[in-house]
Amino acid sequence: MTPEPLLEALRSIVGADHVLTQGKLCAWEQDWRRRRQGKALAVVRPASTAEVAAVVRACAKAGTALIPQGGNTGLSVGATPDDSGTQIVLSLTRMNRIRAIDRDNLTVTVEAGCILQTLQEYADQHGLLFPLSLAAEGSCTVGGNLGTNAGGTQVVRYGNTRELCLGLEVVTAQGEVWEGLSGLRKDNTGYDLRHLFIGSEGTLGVITAATMKLFPKPVADLTAWAAVPSMAAAVRLLGLAHQHLGASLTGFEVMGQFALSLVARHMPQLRVPFAAMQGAPYCVLLENADSESEQHARERFEHLLEHALDEGCVLDAVVAESIAQARELWHVRESIPLAQAEEGLNIKHDISVAASRIPAFVEHTDALLTREIPGVRLVNFGHLGDGNLHYNVQAPEGDDGKVFLREQEARVNRLVYDAVAQFGGSFSAEHGVGQLKTHELERYEPPVALAMMRAIKQALDPQGIMNPGCVLSKP
Amino acid sequence: MTPEPLLEALRSIVGADHVLTQGKLCAWEQDWRRRRQGKALAVVRPASTAEVAAVVRACAKAGTALIPQGGNTGLSVGATPDDSGTQIVLSLTRMNRIRAIDRDNLTVTVEAGCILQTLQEYADQHGLLFPLSLAAEGSCTVGGNLGTNAGGTQVVRYGNTRELCLGLEVVTAQGEVWEGLSGLRKDNTGYDLRHLFIGSEGTLGVITAATMKLFPKPVADLTAWAAVPSMAAAVRLLGLAHQHLGASLTGFEVMGQFALSLVARHMPQLRVPFAAMQGAPYCVLLENADSESEQHARERFEHLLEHALDEGCVLDAVVAESIAQARELWHVRESIPLAQAEEGLNIKHDISVAASRIPAFVEHTDALLTREIPGVRLVNFGHLGDGNLHYNVQAPEGDDGKVFLREQEARVNRLVYDAVAQFGGSFSAEHGVGQLKTHELERYEPPVALAMMRAIKQALDPQGIMNPGCVLSKP
Repeated sequence: MTPEPLLEALRSIVGADHVLTQGKLCAWEQDWRRRRQGKALAVVRPASTAEVAAVVRACAKAGTALIPQGGNTGLSVGATPDDSGTQIVLSLTRMNRIRAIDRDNLTVTVEAGCILQTLQEYADQHGLLFPLSLAAEGSCTVGGNLGTNAGGTQVVRYGNTRELCLGLEVVTAQGEVWEGLSGLRKDNTGYDLRHLFIGSEGTLGVITAATMKLFPKPVADLTAWAAVPSMAAAVRLLGLAHQHLGASLTGFEVMGQFALSLVARHMPQLRVPFAAMQGAPYCVLLENADSESEQHARERFEHLLEHALDEGCVLDAVVAESIAQARELWHVRESIPLAQAEEGLNIKHDISVAASRIPAFVEHTDALLTREIPGVRLVNFGHLGDGNLHYNVQAPEGDDGKVFLREQEARVNRLVYDAVAQFGGSFSAEHGVGQLKTHELERYEPPVALAMMRAIKQALDPQGIMNPGCVLSKP
Repeated sequence: MTPEPLLEALRSIVGADHVLTQGKLCAWEQDWRRRRQGKALAVVRPASTAEVAAVVRACAKAGTALIPQGGNTGLSVGATPDDSGTQIVLSLTRMNRIRAIDRDNLTVTVEAGCILQTLQEYADQHGLLFPLSLAAEGSCTVGGNLGTNAGGTQVVRYGNTRELCLGLEVVTAQGEVWEGLSGLRKDNTGYDLRHLFIGSEGTLGVITAATMKLFPKPVADLTAWAAVPSMAAAVRLLGLAHQHLGASLTGFEVMGQFALSLVARHMPQLRVPFAAMQGAPYCVLLENADSESEQHARERFEHLLEHALDEGCVLDAVVAESIAQARELWHVRESIPLAQAEEGLNIKHDISVAASRIPAFVEHTDALLTREIPGVRLVNFGHLGDGNLHYNVQAPEGDDGKVFLREQEARVNRLVYDAVAQFGGSFSAEHGVGQLKTHELERYEPPVALAMMRAIKQALDPQGIMNPGCVLSKP
């Protein structure tokens, strides 16, 4: 069947300028990490919910698959087309309005294509905080954050994107609009469709807008950096931080010394505190957001760190004296992925394990990999406050990263994910399943749960046109 | 078809002692508020997940409906059988073990039949907090809390039951066990089945166990009571409290003076602060749980209240000087339902509206009801911190409550729920839909959402044996 009638229908819905079929479309067809290169029939860019609904209806009529896409910064290949040239990329970036703010209710209603950083800045200008924060915030969209249930650096206090959302507007796989926007903090009227769409990666429908929570801005934000004698000590420090700081603990990141050594090697202009310190295999970055005063925050922090030093779970620590210093510390943490890329290609993991089991998991898996691949280098860092590690695996010193990836990736993934499963963890903590990890989902998810997911997919998208092959492999 | 073979099968699964068919079964057959009297084929009391699964399989084979039941304290008739004498009540109360606590991960794994208060006390004994708290806590079960997504008095800080749950163990409608227990705070592997089962009131499967979040215990818990000049002032005070106390604000309850006057009338031994104070139509109860010290909590509270007095959104306020005084204040708040019952039968509502719109909603609806039913008395109180009001309607002074209910209930519900819908609110904030409110769900839920709910029900329970007629009316 010729696609021309569908393309004509799409042009009449969104305007010919917004149905892209010519020229370089790789910004939409290729995922951000360049793991897959697809080929779309067209990239369609609607400007309103009504246009999205009409696009979905036209595609449903033609039996054509749709791939919803936000900023295309996802890490699991969940928003790009396959290479058949038959799928439509539905780009939401023109739907980028902030529709309304309700300061007394601490909520904001925003369209799916709004850039995360735009929303952060908008909240800030209104004297409030939108706490979701992650590396791609300058280009990822709120719709993508919701579709993948993005995490980031403040989850320990504010939760994942899921926990920040009160209501959704969704275009269903039939092209109907579900008006589920809501600023309600309590609403027990039937099944929670909101949470079903959040994290479903565009496979059940298209999120077009959302009502998100806002928070009072903390008065003071302090950052500390601590050297710890072991991963177990880092977990103990987490417990103390919960106890001492309560909900003021907004960040708790762990970094292995090898990860930090890559920053020191490739970004020599950055100062890495306690780099290569004897007996300190890990450093921890803590953030303390106080609703009272900077002085109060500093006292609480110092009290915590003194207690931790006394107990021996911290060897040494610094509290940033200024915002500039705090930024420098965060900059070191955030430079790890780039430093790692400079060092060469590597095998990335985004895993979670209960915080209490992380020390045993790391000990077990470090030993396993070192035994199986002599000389392998482990770049271990992440959001320990949420039990989430980016447990990455780098080729032995001097080896070619490309060859390492080609020869070892499948094997390393199996070793790491089997270990994660053995410790009751998740093979995808915050990046989602996408096309990249459908086989991992099939391997590790209990069959009973998989069967329910397939039944739900069939119930809400019986034609199978919404992002096929993402999350669940094609039937 | 004779039910005897099924009963025989059930006896062989759980033991004859735990298949109740004789004697007075109204503790299981009648809902707590005595709105409906059902008749069960049997009450079955399994002791393990395997027994629950076998019971469900036996019922599925026989095509017999199952009504999962916890403490039977629900307020929307969601856990009792119809009057056909053909349904099985599946009582979870024998499954009441706390399976494991993980202090470093701040989680506890508990069976569905565990009494809420038992879990609260268990956490307390381990130096931790399980924050869910509601009137029925001495007899409701964690499984029931999850099934109905219970709310209560600490939602403003800790969220509803949904937000406190990390993982579930569920017996599906086919009698299979989904092992979804998990202590993970980040896990983006497929559709969120957990949130689908939470709040589904036993219509999609049977929750048999859950992993729940725990929190560090606050060091100091202070309670204040403030007289406010209007509902708008109460909402302004809420905003100030968020700003000043941050996450230490754990309770924010509003009470109308008429509600308080019923407490004064029927419980003359209780002292009601600022009772009948001129120009103060509402009082607010605030709770401040501090992770630092009592002195610090008191300073923060006084700072907040001084600011609120200066702004005029508080007319007068007291901070409890002792735990005994704090308990007295809470006791006044918690005595409202009982005082109201003493005054006579009344029409109860459990509604939510965005906090910002509550003043306009109350003004509109108070005027509407007063105009439509001269002399009507409004018992307005609830969890203003969550936008949740128990906006109850009492017969005019001297009128017979029974007659009032018979003649006015349907009309009053329509007036109130239409007003709620007009203000973008929910007709069931925390009590669920049950059998009692299925027609309200059909009336107020968008048809697109209802169709998705029916499709999900059909997908996960195609036989329609799980709590039929609850949430969704029978097809």
